[in-house]
Amino acid sequence: MQKNSHLMVQPEELGLLTDLYQLTMGACYTGEGVADRRASFELFTRRLPKHYGYLIAAGLEQAIAYLESLSFSPEQLDMLRQTGLFHNAPDSFWLRLEATRFTGDIWAVPEGTAVFANEPLLRVEAPLWQAQLVETYLLNTINYQTLIATRAARLRDVAGPEAQLLEFGTRRAFSPQGALWAARAALAGGLNATSNVLAALKLGHNPSGTMAHALVMALAALEGDEDEAFQAFHRYFPGAPLLIDTYDAVAAAERLSQAQAQGHPIPAVRLDSGDLVELSKIVRSHLPDTQIFASGDLDEYAIAHLRQQHAPIDGYGLGTKLVTGAPVNGVYKLVDIDGIPVMKEAAGKMSYPGKKQIFRQFHQGVIVQDYLGLASEDNAGHPSREPLLQQVMNQGQRSSRIESLETIAQRTAHSVACLPAPLRNIHSAAAAPMTISEALENLTQQTRRTALQAA
Amino acid sequence: MQKNSHLMVQPEELGLLTDLYQLTMGACYTGEGVADRRASFELFTRRLPKHYGYLIAAGLEQAIAYLESLSFSPEQLDMLRQTGLFHNAPDSFWLRLEATRFTGDIWAVPEGTAVFANEPLLRVEAPLWQAQLVETYLLNTINYQTLIATRAARLRDVAGPEAQLLEFGTRRAFSPQGALWAARAALAGGLNATSNVLAALKLGHNPSGTMAHALVMALAALEGDEDEAFQAFHRYFPGAPLLIDTYDAVAAAERLSQAQAQGHPIPAVRLDSGDLVELSKIVRSHLPDTQIFASGDLDEYAIAHLRQQHAPIDGYGLGTKLVTGAPVNGVYKLVDIDGIPVMKEAAGKMSYPGKKQIFRQFHQGVIVQDYLGLASEDNAGHPSREPLLQQVMNQGQRSSRIESLETIAQRTAHSVACLPAPLRNIHSAAAAPMTISEALENLTQQTRRTALQAA
Repeated sequence: MQKNSHLMVQPEELGLLTDLYQLTMGACYTGEGVADRRASFELFTRRLPKHYGYLIAAGLEQAIAYLESLSFSPEQLDMLRQTGLFHNAPDSFWLRLEATRFTGDIWAVPEGTAVFANEPLLRVEAPLWQAQLVETYLLNTINYQTLIATRAARLRDVAGPEAQLLEFGTRRAFSPQGALWAARAALAGGLNATSNVLAALKLGHNPSGTMAHALVMALAALEGDEDEAFQAFHRYFPGAPLLIDTYDAVAAAERLSQAQAQGHPIPAVRLDSGDLVELSKIVRSHLPDTQIFASGDLDEYAIAHLRQQHAPIDGYGLGTKLVTGAPVNGVYKLVDIDGIPVMKEAAGKMSYPGKKQIFRQFHQGVIVQDYLGLASEDNAGHPSREPLLQQVMNQGQRSSRIESLETIAQRTAHSVACLPAPLRNIHSAAAAPMTISEALENLTQQTRRTALQAA
Repeated sequence: MQKNSHLMVQPEELGLLTDLYQLTMGACYTGEGVADRRASFELFTRRLPKHYGYLIAAGLEQAIAYLESLSFSPEQLDMLRQTGLFHNAPDSFWLRLEATRFTGDIWAVPEGTAVFANEPLLRVEAPLWQAQLVETYLLNTINYQTLIATRAARLRDVAGPEAQLLEFGTRRAFSPQGALWAARAALAGGLNATSNVLAALKLGHNPSGTMAHALVMALAALEGDEDEAFQAFHRYFPGAPLLIDTYDAVAAAERLSQAQAQGHPIPAVRLDSGDLVELSKIVRSHLPDTQIFASGDLDEYAIAHLRQQHAPIDGYGLGTKLVTGAPVNGVYKLVDIDGIPVMKEAAGKMSYPGKKQIFRQFHQGVIVQDYLGLASEDNAGHPSREPLLQQVMNQGQRSSRIESLETIAQRTAHSVACLPAPLRNIHSAAAAPMTISEALENLTQQTRRTALQAA
């Protein structure tokens, strides 16, 4: 195990990237002789984030990569033993961990699919101890990437198909890897590019960016004035967007307009402060053919306001409010053990029992109704209801193709286009047209009675 | 470069973990012949998060580790070249990147120090292109860890020194590495332990945890009832906290009280839902000597409420609201280039020019006044004013010792104890007693005049 100051995570360390209780419960399951019973867990959210009408599923590819490579090294197991926390655990637990590989099945909605509250994004069917162990990592990847892909989809929906939407969040992201995952999910959700060089190169994209105030300040101090800074940057990056608000954006736009008249093209500028509605209109009046980018704590609400005020802005840099903030609170709940449907009834935290499927009904390309039903339900009578969860791993082997980010982004765009308009309202989204099937309703009643007897 | 589905970050890839414009600006600086001019950048926040009276600085260790190892491999530079974005960059830029190592000086407040708005947490003094390149990573590590350490300090301050505060956030953290950094900063800020096994082992701690609803549901279904699940878990983890709210927490507490009377000790239980004030009082009435842990979307406000209502709770699991949410919006601004102080004047985003120092004055162990002054100011006339920024790297070499998390946590506790009480009010913290020194005020006026001439 790397114990250096970087505190990076190595792919071969992912087995330990879990909550302690997943391992202690595994020891208990082993001791009780139930570790290999077939368990089904489903990952879903009880409530959508405030004002959200849908989620865009993302993070599945990292979930599958994790499950494919799950294992523990002898050194890792030694460290675990040395904690002393497991001294009453059965020896067979350690044998089990030494031989760890994931052998279960995974069903999931494809990345880029719109889902609603209580609809499973993913189901794990595996030996109980394995399905338990992987909870933490699956939630980590799917919660965060789903949040970012959803925000990206909302941004794209509000900004329109022509706007350039650029992910600038790395400096505010919650860790370097958080920045990479944010960049991936942002592209999956419909943004055009990321400024994060490492993320872009790993994702097979070109990074994107403009210039910073520091360049203007440094070159103005060393070479004389702001215009010299602009000219210097264009010497090496002709046509690159110029950041014009270091001192006085209006004065800078006026001078750039004169420069353009003298033959220096100014294809794009960026505004990062001030009243963006007013400033963008003034800049446009001086530079009618120049693309205007805006940045500075923008989100879908700010963009909606700017558009409503007819601010002539062609592109947006999205940072802090894209990559930080309130999370998607996905949970991962046991729904079936050895063929016995189970449910939790804790106050306000009820879950539906049994292995489930989402059946989605469309009319003229728009979702009219989702039925949350049992995976075993026969849909033959309703050929127009599309089952959303697909098998993506079979006995621990990937059974689906790796999808490109472009494919996922196209699915996202299609998913949003299929939503009823009231669900796309960013200010107060309507409740989703989701109902429980009769079979699931019956199973829920029945399981509740059984659970009450168990308590 | 690893281009696998995990999207992990490797330590040797950190050079590229930056925004594109840091590299394009470096190319421009190189072409203009100013790349090696001595630049000073300072990292600070303009405003504290809402209702926060202070920040606890954290993340410096990862910043230093990054700077010590900064470099680019030939393969990485090839990939960068192949983007085509740099085809007008001077050849000398590539030679510069090939030989990259950080050669600057770093001044910083030690981790665990309380700071206020506009006070620099860190200053980089380095060749301009290097100081520019490292902005993104420095902000990434210090913004996030400072947020988490500050929240942890607030939680500890509200919960009191005896409470067990456990970091349970991994499933909601923004990426696996985000979870590790959160665990580190939470321990640095005063929490007792983390449930993240990998984080704990890398940090030299033991992980901590209880049990999950799934164990109760699985064993109740397979073995008969909730009590069998409790007994099973205690067979392998005697005395481990039992999660009692899967079905009916009050009924479970009554039964555990009877079990205890029959000789089965119940040292601890956990409540994860419902009215925690009422439930904890009922549980305490049944199990007077049992430790009660609470969890479920808790933060410092919830803990303050629970304590005010005299809820008999001994420990708290902190997850979602500790590791996600609104960020610390640290910025990194050029303050001096080649001995010329500079400042930004964009609307609402002004920065103070010049290399600065925080001079902190105490009276009877409590901060009475911070003076934000120039690093060059002679403090000889004020021996009671303690300068907070210390040199931690000298010409690219670490010049400070690696501190243990325990040392940092002790400093955090001391920092909070030294704050005036109104700054510790979590509901509406008072403004910090921070003022600008006369020398800095004069320099600001002077620089503003110069900047206006430059524009």
